[in-house]
Amino acid sequence: VINAGKSQHNEDQACCEVVFVERRPSPRGRLPSRESSGELDGVSAGAALTQPSCLSPQGRKGFYFHYWALFDGHAGSGAAVMASKRLHLHICEQLRDLVDILQDPSPPPICLPHDMRAGPAELSRVPLSEDDKEVPNDAVPRFHLEKAVSHESLVIGAIENAFKHMDDQIERERASQRLSGGCCALAAVYLMGKFYVANAGDSRAIIIRNGEIIPMSREFTPETERQRLQFLAFLRPELLGKEFTHLEFPRRIQPKELGKKMLYRDQNMNGWAYKKIEENDLKFPLIYGEGKKARVMATIGVTRGLGDHDLKVFSSNIHIKPFLSCFPEVRVYDLTQYEHCPDDVLVLGTDGLWDVTNDKEVAAVVMEVLTSYEPNDPCRYTMVAQELVVRSRGVLKERGWRLSNDKLGSGDDISVFVIPL
Amino acid sequence: VINAGKSQHNEDQACCEVVFVERRPSPRGRLPSRESSGELDGVSAGAALTQPSCLSPQGRKGFYFHYWALFDGHAGSGAAVMASKRLHLHICEQLRDLVDILQDPSPPPICLPHDMRAGPAELSRVPLSEDDKEVPNDAVPRFHLEKAVSHESLVIGAIENAFKHMDDQIERERASQRLSGGCCALAAVYLMGKFYVANAGDSRAIIIRNGEIIPMSREFTPETERQRLQFLAFLRPELLGKEFTHLEFPRRIQPKELGKKMLYRDQNMNGWAYKKIEENDLKFPLIYGEGKKARVMATIGVTRGLGDHDLKVFSSNIHIKPFLSCFPEVRVYDLTQYEHCPDDVLVLGTDGLWDVTNDKEVAAVVMEVLTSYEPNDPCRYTMVAQELVVRSRGVLKERGWRLSNDKLGSGDDISVFVIPL
Repeated sequence: VINAGKSQHNEDQACCEVVFVERRPSPRGRLPSRESSGELDGVSAGAALTQPSCLSPQGRKGFYFHYWALFDGHAGSGAAVMASKRLHLHICEQLRDLVDILQDPSPPPICLPHDMRAGPAELSRVPLSEDDKEVPNDAVPRFHLEKAVSHESLVIGAIENAFKHMDDQIERERASQRLSGGCCALAAVYLMGKFYVANAGDSRAIIIRNGEIIPMSREFTPETERQRLQFLAFLRPELLGKEFTHLEFPRRIQPKELGKKMLYRDQNMNGWAYKKIEENDLKFPLIYGEGKKARVMATIGVTRGLGDHDLKVFSSNIHIKPFLSCFPEVRVYDLTQYEHCPDDVLVLGTDGLWDVTNDKEVAAVVMEVLTSYEPNDPCRYTMVAQELVVRSRGVLKERGWRLSNDKLGSGDDISVFVIPL
Repeated sequence: VINAGKSQHNEDQACCEVVFVERRPSPRGRLPSRESSGELDGVSAGAALTQPSCLSPQGRKGFYFHYWALFDGHAGSGAAVMASKRLHLHICEQLRDLVDILQDPSPPPICLPHDMRAGPAELSRVPLSEDDKEVPNDAVPRFHLEKAVSHESLVIGAIENAFKHMDDQIERERASQRLSGGCCALAAVYLMGKFYVANAGDSRAIIIRNGEIIPMSREFTPETERQRLQFLAFLRPELLGKEFTHLEFPRRIQPKELGKKMLYRDQNMNGWAYKKIEENDLKFPLIYGEGKKARVMATIGVTRGLGDHDLKVFSSNIHIKPFLSCFPEVRVYDLTQYEHCPDDVLVLGTDGLWDVTNDKEVAAVVMEVLTSYEPNDPCRYTMVAQELVVRSRGVLKERGWRLSNDKLGSGDDISVFVIPL
């Protein structure tokens, strides 16, 4: 729902795709390297709706992943629109080097030969260099000092780096494409039996399984990331201009309060203590405000996401971007570990949903709506999503948009995916 | 147990005290300020075994707290010995300014007048300055922008700062007192119905309540704090000398591997990805090794604690201390929220215990030993602690100290507190 039906202006974007990840041809093979022919070569989104497999309908080697994502834009929709069109392609691109490795049950190789891109299946084809021939002698002792790296953690790394490449692309193209603003990004990737839920921002994902709520993300806000931001500001005070202090205070300090003792906390503290107010403490706190009103440098209320490269503190030359992270936290849910019933779902929602409807209320709506449809009726999941959106928007009454409990409905865009497990 | 009975050398220290926190006299009152008469003035440790109250037996205003702490020293016992003698006094010192505030049920004041130390009860006695007289006009609007700070978070802040002052004292006195090494610190403070468990290092606290295990701390090691350390090294590369890289690799890279692709992760990543090996990647990783063998700059296996001010990388001039934090994480357990039975306990242990005996095994021993004693026999808790130590040490056999499952016993000092709730 666009601004809960209250406006024509939409900053939420969404994307849902099945993506085929084609194995990257070996640069030493007979095919010419495609590296230079385009960043997103070898990617075919939405080309197939079949289950993941090793061969595409066209006989190309690779695998499929399923993908759902929400992008909650701010200060314009440009970054959100671009991310909704491109993030899955960046994920695909990162996974292309891993096609063989992920399909090989043995542990991922720690080191690949020069220019080796296609994984262990290629190892035997690459001629050993003089140096490489020495390896077998120390291979055994070295092995014991190696850290085991799982396939799962390679997928996590691929998604993390895809977010970074997406952010870099927005930075590069923001001028030519007139991309404004930034966006939170929440993406769910289903690959080889596992859901990878990547979150950068204040959207949220939960799994509802047998009535139980399993959080699949956490929110990144000035309050949850306070210590990271204060630590950065402490180490790089020049990023604060001369306007801000890295210390947190419970309210603005007035100049006449110099010398009094005030509650504060620094980057090392979770608790509060009193300190004598000095000149520098009169600056505005880096993190200020509570809950939905908490802001970084009085400007932005989320601390992770894509875009915002030009964002500055109002009427100043102080950049916000150094304090924002484009890296998501990725949580993994192994679908093969549990028996799932038709009422088990993954719910993705932007903050327009979660601000007015909590996890338990969402679980109750899921239960209520699903039981009113046949278990094999595919539209039952869409109806849950619609019901969640409508309830969070509320109904237009004389005193504004109201929820069933008469509280104010969400004034924000509201986007929801309900995905059967 | 000293090095599990295998050595004469002890680096674990412990402390258990009841501490009276005397309200600091107001500097504006009739009594002369005691500020200059000694840092730990007004502190009387172990003076009373009564329950917390507002007056000491001598009629002084204040309250009691109960205190237990373990200090696991490394590279000498000097820091551990000093911390075991002083940390509770630093906690007391931090709490002295809060005596009135903590006993007043209204929310703590955000700001105290000039030199006001004794809290809200004094507010009316302090004459208003010219500036202060203006305050009432904007007091109402300002209130709504204030962040609410709880009494609990003041105690947390007091404990956090006490650890910092303890660390500063070790730094100041390490030369004159010949204090060697550093120590992990785990402290439990019982105050006004709540347990505050503060942990800096790899000791551990758990509560066992009705057979259920409730973690009351987490360990701070190169692995759990990897991202904080990498972030610092990324922002301050000069701290690495020219010997280390902030990137993590699963094993050492050999010079002949230049140009190959190797798994890595940086400060933003939880997953792994491949990167082309460059010259700078041949340096030793800041964080290296797994589990108990993980080290910061190949030197130290814990990342929080007290002391270590002189610790350097072997045969270099690179200091480790900037990467270590003396700040604990404080967790709170509200005793008044639950009904407790005589078998409910808080267990504190150094890693000598937890390395060989996991949470569940500890809970089983607690259950087993407690049921073999009368519920009102006070020595039953001591017997649990003894049993936990003895089992973790094992028995000397031909092939060394062995546990009941024939695995090797702990080779470390083992210290345990078992505290009835």
